Amino acid sequence: MLLGRVVGTLVASRKEATMEGLKFLVVRQIDVDDADTSGYVVAVDGVGAGVGEVVMYATGSSARQTAATRDRPCDAVIMAIVDTWEVGGDVKYVK
Amino acid sequence: MLLGRVVGTLVASRKEATMEGLKFLVVRQIDVDDADTSGYVVAVDGVGAGVGEVVMYATGSSARQTAATRDRPCDAVIMAIVDTWEVGGDVKYVK
Amino acid sequence: MLLGRVVGTLVASRKEATMEGLKFLVVRQIDVDDADTSGYVVAVDGVGAGVGEVVMYATGSSARQTAATRDRPCDAVIMAIVDTWEVGGDVKYVK
Amino acid sequence: MLLGRVVGTLVASRKEATMEGLKFLVVRQIDVDDADTSGYVVAVDGVGAGVGEVVMYATGSSARQTAATRDRPCDAVIMAIVDTWEVGGDVKYVK
Amino acid sequence: MLLGRVVGTLVASRKEATMEGLKFLVVRQIDVDDADTSGYVVAVDGVGAGVGEVVMYATGSSARQTAATRDRPCDAVIMAIVDTWEVGGDVKYVK
Repeated sequence: MLLGRVVGTLVASRKEATMEGLKFLVVRQIDVDDADTSGYVVAVDGVGAGVGEVVMYATGSSARQTAATRDRPCDAVIMAIVDTWEVGGDVKYVK
Repeated sequence: MLLGRVVGTLVASRKEATMEGLKFLVVRQIDVDDADTSGYVVAVDGVGAGVGEVVMYATGSSARQTAATRDRPCDAVIMAIVDTWEVGGDVKYVK
Repeated sequence: MLLGRVVGTLVASRKEATMEGLKFLVVRQIDVDDADTSGYVVAVDGVGAGVGEVVMYATGSSARQTAATRDRPCDAVIMAIVDTWEVGGDVKYVK
Repeated sequence: MLLGRVVGTLVASRKEATMEGLKFLVVRQIDVDDADTSGYVVAVDGVGAGVGEVVMYATGSSARQTAATRDRPCDAVIMAIVDTWEVGGDVKYVK
Repeated sequence: MLLGRVVGTLVASRKEATMEGLKFLVVRQIDVDDADTSGYVVAVDGVGAGVGEVVMYATGSSARQTAATRDRPCDAVIMAIVDTWEVGGDVKYVK
């Protein structure tokens, strides 16, 4: 999984029927020092994440292993809201 | 999913038989500020997208989770036409 | 899918038994302006492509969704020979 | 698989229910000379790895081929703790 | 598939039980001119490859489509030993 910060929301009224009712969040990828990278993904929210929260997301077929996304054309899902992580003994982020 | 702008169309008369009848669109990947990137993909259209529209596309096995693409050698599908998104409270795109 | 130009052929006599009889083509990835990129892939030919032709290829599990490649350790397949495409109203390639 | 060094731990109390009880480790990708790269992944631990250890991890659907991760939204798993490797006859790492 | 040169071997005694008995090879990715790139992968050997040989490897779920790797947490497999390839009429490599 990769780390990201939810930076925004997206609306798409015309979409695959199986995607109806899902929430799309714009996620900026961050590195292990909690700094922004140039990467992003639009992910389906599986855990009730909100703008500003730091999350973990899974991509590819693993993004379909949730009740919300199974058998749907979804290749990125937020599967956890991060409380904290540390690297080399230093706390890099606390919610 | 990633964001893209449909910039063109592609014709391939000789192809896997299971790909007959599908529409191929040339999609320029864009970033969350609606700016072009160097990335592109040729995607199958699952939602009636047209040239000039901003779309979301799914790749990998997730691209086969639509009626049009199931069990076909397709690794990119347009699964939504984007109405709008915002980042940090700023509207970045409106259809 | 991505666009590529078939630039060569490859022979591998010692290989997974399920790959016997398949044709391996060296494919240079090209961009939407028909210019070479630094990327390449060795793909199984599913459509009778020849050296010099511009093709579309699928990667990952989607590369196994053809009669030739199903259930085989193949992660790239040529699934179409391109006739033409256009970007922004300009024809970028004609066979 | 890629090589990585376990550099930290991550806690996420709010997550997909199927991810309960799994251990998340922050893994810095390393190259074949045992030098750090800019890449990282947060991986589920399948083998009892600890901070400081050099591991191999698998990504994508292959990350779900363990008892701990099957059918879960997990796209990276540590599937081995590395004892040693050599390149060109030189031992690059010994545990 | 991508081209690589087997540059070394790796030992990991503590690993997923399903990976027991598999041979891990360190593979340097090469380009179509037979030159080294910065990429590498640790791949399971499916064809009896040895150090110094040029091989083709498959990644992702396709890496599990061999008898040795099926249903295992393996995302890279050597599925062929390369005899020769040519690009633009020039032989780039002969075993």
